Amino acid sequence: MKLHGTMRINSQSHLEIGGCDCTELAKDFGTPLYIMDEQLIRENCRGFVRAFSRCYPSIEIVYAGKAFLTTAMAKIIESEGLSLDVVSGGELYTAYSAGFPMDRVYFHGNNKTPEEINMALEYGVGCIVVDNPSELEMLDNTASSMGVRQKVLVRVSPGVAANTHQYIQTGQLDSKFGFPLYRDGAFRAVKRVLASKALAFEGLHCHIGSQITDVSAFCTAAENMLGFAARIRTELEAPVNVLNLGGGFGIYYTKEDRRMLPEDFSEPITSSVKEALARYNLAAPKLMVEPGRYIVGDAGTTLYKVGSVKDIPEVRKYVFVDGGMADNPRPALYHARYRATIANRMEKAEGEKITLAGKCCESGDILLRDIILPEIKSGDLIAVFSTGAYNYSMASNYNRLPKPAVVLVSDGKADLIVKRESYQDVIRNDIIPERLKK
Amino acid sequence: MKLHGTMRINSQSHLEIGGCDCTELAKDFGTPLYIMDEQLIRENCRGFVRAFSRCYPSIEIVYAGKAFLTTAMAKIIESEGLSLDVVSGGELYTAYSAGFPMDRVYFHGNNKTPEEINMALEYGVGCIVVDNPSELEMLDNTASSMGVRQKVLVRVSPGVAANTHQYIQTGQLDSKFGFPLYRDGAFRAVKRVLASKALAFEGLHCHIGSQITDVSAFCTAAENMLGFAARIRTELEAPVNVLNLGGGFGIYYTKEDRRMLPEDFSEPITSSVKEALARYNLAAPKLMVEPGRYIVGDAGTTLYKVGSVKDIPEVRKYVFVDGGMADNPRPALYHARYRATIANRMEKAEGEKITLAGKCCESGDILLRDIILPEIKSGDLIAVFSTGAYNYSMASNYNRLPKPAVVLVSDGKADLIVKRESYQDVIRNDIIPERLKK
Repeated sequence: MKLHGTMRINSQSHLEIGGCDCTELAKDFGTPLYIMDEQLIRENCRGFVRAFSRCYPSIEIVYAGKAFLTTAMAKIIESEGLSLDVVSGGELYTAYSAGFPMDRVYFHGNNKTPEEINMALEYGVGCIVVDNPSELEMLDNTASSMGVRQKVLVRVSPGVAANTHQYIQTGQLDSKFGFPLYRDGAFRAVKRVLASKALAFEGLHCHIGSQITDVSAFCTAAENMLGFAARIRTELEAPVNVLNLGGGFGIYYTKEDRRMLPEDFSEPITSSVKEALARYNLAAPKLMVEPGRYIVGDAGTTLYKVGSVKDIPEVRKYVFVDGGMADNPRPALYHARYRATIANRMEKAEGEKITLAGKCCESGDILLRDIILPEIKSGDLIAVFSTGAYNYSMASNYNRLPKPAVVLVSDGKADLIVKRESYQDVIRNDIIPERLKK
Repeated sequence: MKLHGTMRINSQSHLEIGGCDCTELAKDFGTPLYIMDEQLIRENCRGFVRAFSRCYPSIEIVYAGKAFLTTAMAKIIESEGLSLDVVSGGELYTAYSAGFPMDRVYFHGNNKTPEEINMALEYGVGCIVVDNPSELEMLDNTASSMGVRQKVLVRVSPGVAANTHQYIQTGQLDSKFGFPLYRDGAFRAVKRVLASKALAFEGLHCHIGSQITDVSAFCTAAENMLGFAARIRTELEAPVNVLNLGGGFGIYYTKEDRRMLPEDFSEPITSSVKEALARYNLAAPKLMVEPGRYIVGDAGTTLYKVGSVKDIPEVRKYVFVDGGMADNPRPALYHARYRATIANRMEKAEGEKITLAGKCCESGDILLRDIILPEIKSGDLIAVFSTGAYNYSMASNYNRLPKPAVVLVSDGKADLIVKRESYQDVIRNDIIPERLKK
């Protein structure tokens, strides 16, 4: 089992993350537990900044909060100097509550509500990424009536479909996101922004998918976008000051995935950008990218306690843990695959094939199918790797399971950054109408 | 559009449920909004009781709480005289907090934790459905040490796989649930229960799947279970007083589904049971079934407000609503299909093909693909039908969207039974460690 980040095996053969023994974390904070490796989050931030700065004059790295956002996470992103992409009033509120600098916030979403637009303008977010014609009208009206001049990026669907799970493809023509290049949809949007007194056109945004390891998709998107930027300069006489190529940078989950360094993305992408700039004789815009999963994915580990083990001879051996699809819906949603280890016994031992199943009352609640691990006993702790992205953020209370705690580990210290939900929390909004009480 | 339950179209061409105008509900409670039709819930409960009572001497209908459970729902189930199936400490806590009679509670789950077992014994739940050997040992030890004699059902995987979505099949041999008939797994479990002083063997439980409309699967399961009961009587000289055939009763979502009345289930199932009882010369056990979706599924309607409409000529027309996969993950999880209508304009008009997409920042957040509806405008209210089961119960805060409110409507009255989450609620458990504050 290859370890990553600050993970190591200590003298008791326990898994340690951020200098904290996982068996101690389980005792102190309970299970299931999301463990976030602070140093690795910071390294991932810095790796992206470094890799893109090296190859391009002006860059801005925007963390995609939908992967994992809490007030503490906003603080880390702030201190690393990254900007923040939010996609809802709730994410915006989280950032605001954490005191995140609002001028570094980018507000995304295919269906921002009037309330969210108001909130964004009142908070003074740095930039709104406009997604469709009716939003553009609403934003223009609201900004006008508030006397605000709001910076915007125009989200373009660049006609590029990244080679990834169909659910998380974006950027192709048939997309709920963005203005299509096709039939001048995006062109008209830029023109409309330029005509507005309340909106300041900053540049273009696109996003081609998620968990992408085929960099050529980004390169094609960049070329298409700069071709469009050239047309804007020529026909509308407007500069595109910002080119935001979105996120979707793939990470390593299992040996089916390629291991991608930030350089593996930054070098080909910036080469394509520079080539296209030269071809179109364009001034270099600021280049932005929006890693989310890449920043937090491998920095997260979920710790579960094993309950029952169910062996069906010649069929399957099930190992049951105290969480499941409520804290990690990705296997059920996307057939996502993960690696796991026995955190309290990291010795090398003969393995056997098991299936790790969750405790939800649903046959589909299988976390890892057919993985090889040393023999597991009830009470063992299972660490599932690379759960930092789209686990806590997608967690539900299915079966009325309280959401697990999130702990931030660093240099031997463990700080709770999200308290575990109590049963009381789960029913806190329930009301029994008077007439049902009798 | 065929209406059901208490739905009707009022003089303003608005959809009414439980005598409440949906446009008023949207104004009073906001959107997205889950609307539960109390009368229909009660009719569904009564329909099941009636259909099974008619054909069998002794029955008990157990509501499967995982479909939808709040304290108010527990009150309705209590008042209808149904029992309650819970699958976690959280569901148990909900029932307990509502004052639900604990002796009518059945506790299920493939991986009950020691804490949950303790809680169940302390609360005095009527029956624990034992799922696997290690749970059986733990339960026996805990009940012994507490000096409790606990009634149990033994959950059997009867080797029947219902013809439904692969994710929600259960009952086949390769299942995380239950003791297999195969290789005497279930037989040894019953023997073990009978040998315990702390456990009282009540009977057998099985569950063959979800959203089943092929009744023959239930009939086959019943026959297998009674064959097993005959063996228990002969070899262990013990009566099986309870036969619980689980849930999974399918409902009508779209025209792809058969419309099943409770009688369509009760008649063939009880016939098979009676035939098998005669064949094995067995005394009639109490027959239990556990409808969940059937009780609440069609009684629930989700009301959304339309935001932007995005027309990509010759490709697709997207209509965006203010909710999505966070409040209804079933389309993304199971490719589940629904029907929908425009709740504020129920006139008959020419239709056009649209795709209803949610507001989550994910291409997979599509609620209904390619449905025909009259032309939709921003501000319209969309009612998605039959969302009462596995919608609120599976809701997440993905994108930090607050969970919608749930309102119970009846006779022109609308009572809030779950308060809408606020942004404050969403971050209420977030903590910023001191060292990150500077």
